[in-house]
Amino acid sequence: MKIAVLGGDGFVGWPTSLHLSNEGHDIHILDNLSRRWIDTELGVQSLTPMDSIQERTRIWYQETGRRIHFHLIDLARDYDLLKGWLASERPDAIIHFAEQRAAPYSMKSDRHKNYTVNNNVSATHNLLNAMVETGLDAHLVHLGTMGVYGYSTVGAAIPEGYLPVGIDTMAGETVKQEILYPANPGSIYHMTKCLDQLLFQFYAKNDGVRITDLHQGIVWGTHTDQTRRHVQLVNRFDYDGDYGTVLNRFLIQAAIGYPLTVHGTGGQTRAFIHIQDSVRCIEIALKNAPRRGERVKIFNQMTETHRVRDLAELVAKIAGAKVAYLPNPRKEAAENELVVQNEQFMALGLDPIRLAEGLLSEVVDVAKKYAYRVDRSRIPAVSAWTRDIAPTLDRDPEGKALKSVS
Amino acid sequence: MKIAVLGGDGFVGWPTSLHLSNEGHDIHILDNLSRRWIDTELGVQSLTPMDSIQERTRIWYQETGRRIHFHLIDLARDYDLLKGWLASERPDAIIHFAEQRAAPYSMKSDRHKNYTVNNNVSATHNLLNAMVETGLDAHLVHLGTMGVYGYSTVGAAIPEGYLPVGIDTMAGETVKQEILYPANPGSIYHMTKCLDQLLFQFYAKNDGVRITDLHQGIVWGTHTDQTRRHVQLVNRFDYDGDYGTVLNRFLIQAAIGYPLTVHGTGGQTRAFIHIQDSVRCIEIALKNAPRRGERVKIFNQMTETHRVRDLAELVAKIAGAKVAYLPNPRKEAAENELVVQNEQFMALGLDPIRLAEGLLSEVVDVAKKYAYRVDRSRIPAVSAWTRDIAPTLDRDPEGKALKSVS
Repeated sequence: MKIAVLGGDGFVGWPTSLHLSNEGHDIHILDNLSRRWIDTELGVQSLTPMDSIQERTRIWYQETGRRIHFHLIDLARDYDLLKGWLASERPDAIIHFAEQRAAPYSMKSDRHKNYTVNNNVSATHNLLNAMVETGLDAHLVHLGTMGVYGYSTVGAAIPEGYLPVGIDTMAGETVKQEILYPANPGSIYHMTKCLDQLLFQFYAKNDGVRITDLHQGIVWGTHTDQTRRHVQLVNRFDYDGDYGTVLNRFLIQAAIGYPLTVHGTGGQTRAFIHIQDSVRCIEIALKNAPRRGERVKIFNQMTETHRVRDLAELVAKIAGAKVAYLPNPRKEAAENELVVQNEQFMALGLDPIRLAEGLLSEVVDVAKKYAYRVDRSRIPAVSAWTRDIAPTLDRDPEGKALKSVS
Repeated sequence: MKIAVLGGDGFVGWPTSLHLSNEGHDIHILDNLSRRWIDTELGVQSLTPMDSIQERTRIWYQETGRRIHFHLIDLARDYDLLKGWLASERPDAIIHFAEQRAAPYSMKSDRHKNYTVNNNVSATHNLLNAMVETGLDAHLVHLGTMGVYGYSTVGAAIPEGYLPVGIDTMAGETVKQEILYPANPGSIYHMTKCLDQLLFQFYAKNDGVRITDLHQGIVWGTHTDQTRRHVQLVNRFDYDGDYGTVLNRFLIQAAIGYPLTVHGTGGQTRAFIHIQDSVRCIEIALKNAPRRGERVKIFNQMTETHRVRDLAELVAKIAGAKVAYLPNPRKEAAENELVVQNEQFMALGLDPIRLAEGLLSEVVDVAKKYAYRVDRSRIPAVSAWTRDIAPTLDRDPEGKALKSVS
């Protein structure tokens, strides 16, 4: 298949591109490289030394003889360029990662809120619009988030996208219907993924666009079978307060002897998936496209759930570190249960890598190996969810006064 | 109260501004005048001769001694200007009409789809973002649409925004919850109003913004008590295939001896409200603001429902015209039932103007009076909902070949 990977230079986009190229597909990365510009803005960098996209694809060709093509296109701003590219290249499938994907970054300031909304909505809508306009019947696979559900479950397991409900009619009966799970986003970033869902629903219904939406948990792990093939193919690893996910941050904190920073009580339960499983899921989704006219197909792309404080204790035990409890910059429930259905991917053959197996390798092969590159000043989370919360984030876990870098 | 009316130069915005000025409020219209630019783009004009906003406000002052202030600000593009204005003027309430509001226009071409999504999402989000950033605790009243519900009701009356459902838990119980009514938009325009709903929900929850969302039916009628006070205060009246609502189009078709164009079977049932009631509803909503921290307050702003073909027959009978059945440019159900709850406004004192009473005056005082200004070539509806539908719209009801003017 000819596959366009939008955002193929990013954390999940890059290993996905390698994995699918390795499977023999013709891969075209479209990316505006915004994630690299945001590194520059924030003054942070990947823990793992990361080459340019041009250099990475050169190395991949040298190692495998396979070409990955790169096109510098800004999905949100270059509608005509995108439309022209789709019209001439006519990919069989499109994988859409091309959105600003950090919740803390999206809450950093009014400018960051606007950027995230405008960028993400325009990117997704431009793509759908251009697909219809060019009459392109490609399968669109989108990377969404478990965060569209929110994290309160009223005692029912979170289904895969659609919730069966009973509605009382005027005739006094109860009609059963499946509805898109009610959106309950916890940040501007998560909200944009809820907006995406409505865009997908409309274009599937009105124009018959074939769409799969993957509601992904928090991705952990760094290497996949392909990124391991050469040091210059390495994946990015973020540990800063905006882009570092909770597990990466614990790993790096442990590696440099910084306290593991748990925000609030650590009772937040979240869903997780290893990067290697994430790329496998995308491959499985590609092989199981919806039919034209079918509703949007939704998978929960996660393999296990953990409480944040349990994760912290686990990493602390493996790596010998302390845990520090800090004020929570987010407006969220202190404690939540989380039960998630993920039967579809399991039935289609996913055999997950469990956290308990893979964690030690992350500590040794990634966190400790590259610990010399860590900038301690970038570790605190300083993006506050509301104006009331901001003043509470004034100290780092070592007791030093903090200043927002927004 | 100091009230900002965003989009105060438009069809509902203008009589709202007059009505609230008449009640003694200090009115500030913020508008980018985009509706006038779109008239220019489409080569259409209001049936009623309409003066500039500057001239209209001058006449209002001359007639009443009351000032209505006008500020040329583009909500979607001038974030910093908007923020500065809110920070210095600090209105008590903000009424938000400032969105592209025609479904056919939103489906005209890929350019119009992008414009509608980008303009409407950015306008609403910029406003919410700027309110939070300036710490402004104004009551935000937004003009939404009944179209967010879609028009299939599974036998239950459409509630005012929130649907009670039963959810089966893992423990085998059924939990009752009220959820935002599942979005089922029929056009890109309607979809943007569904996106707005999620933006409102998030900002009410995260930042405590006080928001009222009015899900308005199709507005009919031209004059209000204030627009009648001077010929130069007249409201706009659209009859073209994009901006003309169904009743206005029937009225004008009848006035010039053109067949009344019913698309499809005319079995579509829609909700209606008179323009005078619309401005009264907005006044009522202003007086009944939600408390800080309360969920978004939603009213169904409509007073009666009618089938399109019944409306056509009614106008045909009053005005002596024929009805022509044409292919439907929209992708929608041929026939639908529609039962809508509107108890909140009725309980707060709304005494509606009924279609059966007000229709004759529209025929005589508006449609026949200004019939000499009608451009027959602008009457056909040519914006198709899908690529498959477009070729079916090739004849006008007089049998002449049509060409899309998109």
